[in-house]
Amino acid sequence: MPIGGAEDREGEKVVLRRFFELAGGSSSRIAVMPTASMLETTGQFYKQIFEEMGSSHVDVIRIDTRKHANDAARLEWAREATGIFLTGGNQLRLSVMIGGTLLENLVTERSQAGAVVAGTSAGASILSDHMVARGAGGSIPKAGSAHLKAGFGLISGVILDQHFRQRNRLGRLLALVASNPRLLGIGVDEDTAAIIGSDGILEVVGNHGVTIVDGSDMFSDFYRVPNYGEVSLANVKLAMLTSGLRYDLNARVLLPE
Amino acid sequence: MPIGGAEDREGEKVVLRRFFELAGGSSSRIAVMPTASMLETTGQFYKQIFEEMGSSHVDVIRIDTRKHANDAARLEWAREATGIFLTGGNQLRLSVMIGGTLLENLVTERSQAGAVVAGTSAGASILSDHMVARGAGGSIPKAGSAHLKAGFGLISGVILDQHFRQRNRLGRLLALVASNPRLLGIGVDEDTAAIIGSDGILEVVGNHGVTIVDGSDMFSDFYRVPNYGEVSLANVKLAMLTSGLRYDLNARVLLPE
Repeated sequence: MPIGGAEDREGEKVVLRRFFELAGGSSSRIAVMPTASMLETTGQFYKQIFEEMGSSHVDVIRIDTRKHANDAARLEWAREATGIFLTGGNQLRLSVMIGGTLLENLVTERSQAGAVVAGTSAGASILSDHMVARGAGGSIPKAGSAHLKAGFGLISGVILDQHFRQRNRLGRLLALVASNPRLLGIGVDEDTAAIIGSDGILEVVGNHGVTIVDGSDMFSDFYRVPNYGEVSLANVKLAMLTSGLRYDLNARVLLPE
Repeated sequence: MPIGGAEDREGEKVVLRRFFELAGGSSSRIAVMPTASMLETTGQFYKQIFEEMGSSHVDVIRIDTRKHANDAARLEWAREATGIFLTGGNQLRLSVMIGGTLLENLVTERSQAGAVVAGTSAGASILSDHMVARGAGGSIPKAGSAHLKAGFGLISGVILDQHFRQRNRLGRLLALVASNPRLLGIGVDEDTAAIIGSDGILEVVGNHGVTIVDGSDMFSDFYRVPNYGEVSLANVKLAMLTSGLRYDLNARVLLPE
């Protein structure tokens, strides 16, 4: 469940409430992982929100080194989690500290066992196999607009981007899809989530939208454009979907309402 | 020949030079029409540029009222023009002062006779039948993002927008195409032109690109979204083309290089 950042935490909390419900509501067991954040308070802040919603089992799992992420005792509580929530911050803190550790395995196992794994902002980026890390905003796709690092890979075959239309990131997502159109580009707006089921069906929830860039039939000159150069492309299939709409990531089609 | 505004006027002047050549080069007869602009100097400025390129027949046709635009004597010089250049400014000055006048007829006649009609910024917008007038920038298509007025209609079946990716105008162009996908959306960047031949072939010239939004097979919920609401869409075919690439507006396909 990638969330585009800046989700409502004070009003109706539509996005966070959906996470809480998917995790089992009042019988949920939620592990908040604030590793991406540099702020001490981030984990406690989300803990309080989920407790106020009615979960009596919320814990903050502090992981600030690779040693922590390989410390079985520290992870014990999360082994039964029905919901894992990755906060925002810097996605490279997540890949650098958690990539290849026991914790990464645990997150994958819980996801496969049916727990909902949500991440907001940086926590959303890390969910895909190919993770956007460092890049510039703007409407123009440039060959060097953004670079990929390896993420957790809970969702394969996609590139996830966040704060998407609010920070005008279509250019970089187009460029990344152009670099290998096998990957479907998914840009999640602020206060919006793309809930992706094990069946590959994506559902939009929240106050803005999800942009989908399908390059299956596209043309581009990416391979011959220098980093600062503007990429040409054609036949890109674009969708921008608001709350309630569903899209089949495998068939790459919008589902009927 | 719509130009996206802010074309280079001091360096290599790639875009303006192409206009000069299409108008016949040293044997051209160029009418500069600064009606869109509020500045006294705009017309003289372009006159000087085209004279420095080698045209000995450049004149500035000042039209500031509908009476001027219906004054046959004032238009006499332009009757033999091989190139007409509409400056930037406010496209509503063009539609309000020239729509339905002798001058509008003259521009159409010269275009049909093979003269090149170029417009930059506001001068580009007025060239299409359905003209973008007043609107907001941004990545998100909203039902009220922009409104249409009637333009000169030299190019039919399209909506032209300018300063396109520099001012992040994809949202409004998507919304306008969604409102009637018969119209092809064409967004021209700054310092870039979309040269459209009588055969419907568009060629990109300049330092940035041209975005093409083809809604032939699109889905959207435009009809039920309020003005401030965000429009959903899917199956939009998107192209972003840099200098030298050619696109067939009738077949809606990129042509081979």
